[in-house]
Amino acid sequence: MAQLLLGRPVAQALGHKIERYVKEWRQLGRIPRLATVRVGQRGDDVAYEQSLNKAFAKWGIEVQNCVYPAQIEQLELERRVLQLQNDPSVQGILPFMPLPEPLQGERLARILEPGKDLDGVGFLAQAGLYGQRSQLGWAPCTAQACMELLDYYQYPLAGKHVLILGRSLVVGKPLAMLMLARNATVTICHSHSTQAAQLAREADILVAAIGRPRAIGESYLAPQQVVLDVGINFDAQGQLCGDVDPQAAQIVQAYTPVPGGIGCITNAVLALHLVEQCGIRNS
Amino acid sequence: MAQLLLGRPVAQALGHKIERYVKEWRQLGRIPRLATVRVGQRGDDVAYEQSLNKAFAKWGIEVQNCVYPAQIEQLELERRVLQLQNDPSVQGILPFMPLPEPLQGERLARILEPGKDLDGVGFLAQAGLYGQRSQLGWAPCTAQACMELLDYYQYPLAGKHVLILGRSLVVGKPLAMLMLARNATVTICHSHSTQAAQLAREADILVAAIGRPRAIGESYLAPQQVVLDVGINFDAQGQLCGDVDPQAAQIVQAYTPVPGGIGCITNAVLALHLVEQCGIRNS
Repeated sequence: MAQLLLGRPVAQALGHKIERYVKEWRQLGRIPRLATVRVGQRGDDVAYEQSLNKAFAKWGIEVQNCVYPAQIEQLELERRVLQLQNDPSVQGILPFMPLPEPLQGERLARILEPGKDLDGVGFLAQAGLYGQRSQLGWAPCTAQACMELLDYYQYPLAGKHVLILGRSLVVGKPLAMLMLARNATVTICHSHSTQAAQLAREADILVAAIGRPRAIGESYLAPQQVVLDVGINFDAQGQLCGDVDPQAAQIVQAYTPVPGGIGCITNAVLALHLVEQCGIRNS
Repeated sequence: MAQLLLGRPVAQALGHKIERYVKEWRQLGRIPRLATVRVGQRGDDVAYEQSLNKAFAKWGIEVQNCVYPAQIEQLELERRVLQLQNDPSVQGILPFMPLPEPLQGERLARILEPGKDLDGVGFLAQAGLYGQRSQLGWAPCTAQACMELLDYYQYPLAGKHVLILGRSLVVGKPLAMLMLARNATVTICHSHSTQAAQLAREADILVAAIGRPRAIGESYLAPQQVVLDVGINFDAQGQLCGDVDPQAAQIVQAYTPVPGGIGCITNAVLALHLVEQCGIRNS
């Protein structure tokens, strides 16, 4: 029977750290503040905004919800983001991506400065991660959440073989960079990989980030594995599930459930980035 | 007996393409021009500069050798590079890295604009490669040279397992990005990898970029492999050699020799980037 790697205790441990930072910061008479940038009324974005507002309030962090109409001009949106960048009362900026058409997220990514870019969507933060320049920007929160979970449960990474299914800029690629920085051997597979299952069975740590409900079954799994399931999907019955088949996962050493795994940690990582950003500004 | 994958025919094929572009550009009354930026008198840099001058002259491309004293101030160096960036008679800029202490290469990397940054050393070019934004900048020439060689000898990449030994920003990481963009499965190993030899034996394409003379022997090699040797080392006898032991490599399908392999192609890739940059400016 595999060990369940729950996200909640990880989030709680991060929460304590966040609260300590926030307290210090407020004792200096300062208020930590995140600015969210939402364009239009997409349901996913609204739900995410609400969940952030709730979580951050609990930690004593203010959230300024900047909401613009879907018809906003590109230049006007960029001007607003630059204002937030120059606003000393804002320590972090989170634009909800992708932007509605015909707005270009890449143009926002080009102007976002690494410090306040807490989810690492800007070009400079990405170059920082890719080039392992630790002073330059934050990693995307979901990728960082995987690292926090492995650290919490004390799985060492140096010399381990980590196989990542998925090559997105939100999880696959940034996680590969974070794992390399910790001296893991990293394999990146994707929809064109013909040997993914075989390679996966040999891996010490398997990360599934492909967005296909319970697609990772026993052909990918082996007893020595620690499996991180980053998928957030709905199956044909409308039930929330991950990329990994939980029944098949019983044979592995340990795995993160969905719900209750990595997804529980990402808000806390975002808040941690914000309070650490406060620390940098303060020092 | 393994097939030898020679670099010279690849460079020649690229050379024809370069000469065609140069001719068109000159017919428009324009002169393609590279600016090299050398700080100090390091022997490697001087030799590289001379080899570039010779190769580029052959293709009809002018090279402007900007040479600054090792004592130049950081800001003054940045000012000079910005001048080159704004100079319409210069289509490409190649700063020789690393800069002598205490100059900071990272600060140059931050100001280099992707278009003229032909060797992809700038942050924006790196973010472009990492994020697979094909319009944003050039890949480092040595990494690109590997792709040109595989294309020349018609080895398909989609679905193949490519194992890269080395994670530098000059070869390992950019090559991983280029391979992913071509739908290969990619494994990155390095000095901390404990299972590199075993994983390597299973790979379809093995790339050695670790900088250790003939360190890759039979434990890494297998009959199905195509092996690219990116190492440029001198052994104890002072003889130029690669990372792969050529005797052990006889069992693989095909491999690139050192000298005579990848190293022959990099100047042509740099020139190709330059003439393609001319094309973009021209259109």
